[in-house]
Amino acid sequence: MDVQEFREFGKAAVDYIADYFETIRDRPVLSSVKPGYLGELLPKEAPQTGESWQDVLQDVDRIIMPGLTHWQSPRFHAYYPTANSFPSVIGEMLSAGFGCVGLSWIASPAYTELEVVMMNWLGKLLNLPEEFLNCSEGPGGGIIQGSASEVTFIGLLAAKEKKVKDLMEANPALKETDIRGKLVAYSSDQSNSSVEKAGLLGSVPMKLLPANESGQLTAETLLEAIRQDKEQGLIPCYLVTSLGTTPTCAFDDLLELGPLCNREGIWLHVDAAYAGTAFVCPEYRYLMKGVELADSFNFNPHKWMLVNFDCSAMWVKNAKYLVEAFNVQRIYLKDNHNGLAPEYRHWQISLGRRFRALKLWFVLKIYGVEGIQKHVRGQIRLAKQFECLVLQDGRFEVCTSSMGLVTFRLKGDNDLTERLLEKLDQRKRIFVIAGHFGGKLVIRFAICSRLTNGDDVDLSWAEIKSQADGIVPMADLREEMKVKRSIGSFELTDTAREKIRCEKSK
Amino acid sequence: MDVQEFREFGKAAVDYIADYFETIRDRPVLSSVKPGYLGELLPKEAPQTGESWQDVLQDVDRIIMPGLTHWQSPRFHAYYPTANSFPSVIGEMLSAGFGCVGLSWIASPAYTELEVVMMNWLGKLLNLPEEFLNCSEGPGGGIIQGSASEVTFIGLLAAKEKKVKDLMEANPALKETDIRGKLVAYSSDQSNSSVEKAGLLGSVPMKLLPANESGQLTAETLLEAIRQDKEQGLIPCYLVTSLGTTPTCAFDDLLELGPLCNREGIWLHVDAAYAGTAFVCPEYRYLMKGVELADSFNFNPHKWMLVNFDCSAMWVKNAKYLVEAFNVQRIYLKDNHNGLAPEYRHWQISLGRRFRALKLWFVLKIYGVEGIQKHVRGQIRLAKQFECLVLQDGRFEVCTSSMGLVTFRLKGDNDLTERLLEKLDQRKRIFVIAGHFGGKLVIRFAICSRLTNGDDVDLSWAEIKSQADGIVPMADLREEMKVKRSIGSFELTDTAREKIRCEKSK
Repeated sequence: MDVQEFREFGKAAVDYIADYFETIRDRPVLSSVKPGYLGELLPKEAPQTGESWQDVLQDVDRIIMPGLTHWQSPRFHAYYPTANSFPSVIGEMLSAGFGCVGLSWIASPAYTELEVVMMNWLGKLLNLPEEFLNCSEGPGGGIIQGSASEVTFIGLLAAKEKKVKDLMEANPALKETDIRGKLVAYSSDQSNSSVEKAGLLGSVPMKLLPANESGQLTAETLLEAIRQDKEQGLIPCYLVTSLGTTPTCAFDDLLELGPLCNREGIWLHVDAAYAGTAFVCPEYRYLMKGVELADSFNFNPHKWMLVNFDCSAMWVKNAKYLVEAFNVQRIYLKDNHNGLAPEYRHWQISLGRRFRALKLWFVLKIYGVEGIQKHVRGQIRLAKQFECLVLQDGRFEVCTSSMGLVTFRLKGDNDLTERLLEKLDQRKRIFVIAGHFGGKLVIRFAICSRLTNGDDVDLSWAEIKSQADGIVPMADLREEMKVKRSIGSFELTDTAREKIRCEKSK
Repeated sequence: MDVQEFREFGKAAVDYIADYFETIRDRPVLSSVKPGYLGELLPKEAPQTGESWQDVLQDVDRIIMPGLTHWQSPRFHAYYPTANSFPSVIGEMLSAGFGCVGLSWIASPAYTELEVVMMNWLGKLLNLPEEFLNCSEGPGGGIIQGSASEVTFIGLLAAKEKKVKDLMEANPALKETDIRGKLVAYSSDQSNSSVEKAGLLGSVPMKLLPANESGQLTAETLLEAIRQDKEQGLIPCYLVTSLGTTPTCAFDDLLELGPLCNREGIWLHVDAAYAGTAFVCPEYRYLMKGVELADSFNFNPHKWMLVNFDCSAMWVKNAKYLVEAFNVQRIYLKDNHNGLAPEYRHWQISLGRRFRALKLWFVLKIYGVEGIQKHVRGQIRLAKQFECLVLQDGRFEVCTSSMGLVTFRLKGDNDLTERLLEKLDQRKRIFVIAGHFGGKLVIRFAICSRLTNGDDVDLSWAEIKSQADGIVPMADLREEMKVKRSIGSFELTDTAREKIRCEKSK
């Protein structure tokens, strides 16, 4: 393919993406294909001779498009958002176009240096303590990793490194292997599955302690776990807290857990993968109080901050422990700039790195701080709108509501909610997934796409309601309803929690 | 940014990349910026309000471009190639445009299924044993990972899992922790630094055994290491072999090492990160003889096969051990297609995954098998051309030559070669890096860019020669030269190895 063909193919592909976004609202969210569909459409082996780009683009439309579940559809409400924005898509393309690998400073100075500056911008945007930033005097700093999974694992490695070092310094008679075999880590049973996986990857038992009824890990629970483990000769080294848990977007209390970790020499990691973006808005920063007690902090701009996957921001208070856990210096990686710019390959799993800072820069420049704040506030408002709609229907109960996530269910046995989920899945007009909260099956409804507006939320709710009608008819329900209260212009059932004032959020 | 602006920005960015490739040959390969340059060009904080895309593209040109080391320049000869091709760049952009995350089959069936088919295409292209392929009856299969570093680490995790399981089955009285603490892994001192890192990540000592004078690990060395370790009660579980080592592109002999691993129950991993692409050409497949004895195999289409970073192809003979090392099933990841399509999240570190199969598909479709073979053969021919040029200059010695990599040095003390490297670095017209071979400092010269042609190789050599003139003048050398032999039309010094017949490769 020569340069001229690239110009043509590239522009056709840009139009293809633009057309896709102009029609995405009309597509069923979920794909209708059956497992194995694609293998039947493709030959069994690679073609011997090349094909034209026109053929390729037609095949994308014919073969790939039917097999997509449209994450950017305004009625995709599953998981948490995975960001997508036009500036970010173009940042990704330019990065691919340059085709460099930032494995050291000299391998492309702009790769390392833009990342340093972007991590400073981002840290300031969230009002993180100065000591986490590259621009501070100390040993702290930020880096873009691929995912929160990677970060949680890397944090664990650093925590192990630090604990082994600390104990051996305090008691030189100790053997390293004896310490390593006794290390233990904690998180709550509400943390993401990747936290448990990090324990498997890092060969450290990751104990998932029970959260309280609000989905938070308490200091009391942690303290008791530490006590028991220490009694058995184990060595606690790492706690993964969540600011915005996966099931319900609950926030652990860092002011409560932090001092305990600091006192016990436990590395405190804060996983704010989704909700961290909200700290761009000053009114939500109270939820991260105590972050100065943490050793590492992570959030994913690729979730809620309009930067395409992958872009996971990680800060550490002391990068020394990362570097020492990783550093393998060989001559073919030699360079003369150590110390003047971080050698990020020693902060991460892989040697090579894409230019992820570029798409982040594009998003911050083109949206500006105000654009991102507007995006966050708008999505939280849409979640409130949805919550109000659910609360007006007495067949449902809202279980939790936090940031852009509402969990709810049909009152009564779990099988009612399970049937509702099945019906919604079959119709493919919206995409929601199941969760568990307080021992009950719930539906997680997240505002995900940046395209979602008030009408979309109304449509998604109408879809849910219409399918619920086949399970619990409205008429039956009206008879069952015992308590009604009126708040403002809404008629609310007894499920309405006092603290919600729907009329205010409209 | 609305859809119309995206069309404009996107097309301008396509043209920007096209223009870049049309001018790349004229740019100095290495960047001239000083560490910290970029921080001085950017504000200290993110902009409060958004900027126009025109401003952003201008800033790319003004701020980023001077800080790039041009990996796709035809005179970039450092490390190994990092692939870049137009079809691949567009695949990356479309994948970003769709903005899905393939964390399960239903999360976008095309993501999983195209990857399954592409890994079959690729495996057949390399003539891998059937049992590694997804399309075989057995438990084998292929997956795209991010890097060879990740793969080596994941292979180690699977190897640990298997060894623990095997030993506990054989002897139920054994305790898991006792086994884990005694595991040990091997590779050669010629393997990539990521292999040593994998040991650190996986908490298993990775012993780097001395390679022979050809850069290969011998069965004799491995056998002795196993014997010693077993004597000390250790449990060997993992061997990382290299087909194409990083320093010199040497090939371990799988037919020699494989039976030993199989007999000892050691997981045999084959790292063919760079050179694996050569197996697309039947004439190089003799170098992977014995691959059927391996448990896992890896090569990076993002190195030599024209697919943009990241795209690292991994196959395992039994995926069960991967899945068991990783599997953390939670309700919010529930789906109904287990068994019908692989759930790749259980084969890798992160939960989320980009649509990397798309760019691989684009490359295979647009180049075709013949196009890729032509690319590989052409680059090997260029390396031969370079080797012949070096051999004609009696001041130099060629140390190794394999695939697209030639290592060479100025005869005599290392400091001559070191001075030459410094001069080349300062002039920034070509980019080569240092290596060590047989205790001597060498220069690694790799054919990297798909744009490199015979004239570029001549120019790169002229640059090296001109800088050598300031260190060892031609005249002096002529007096020192003792032995000369003539092969065909070339005058060769005593460093010319018998087996090379330059005239044949011209």
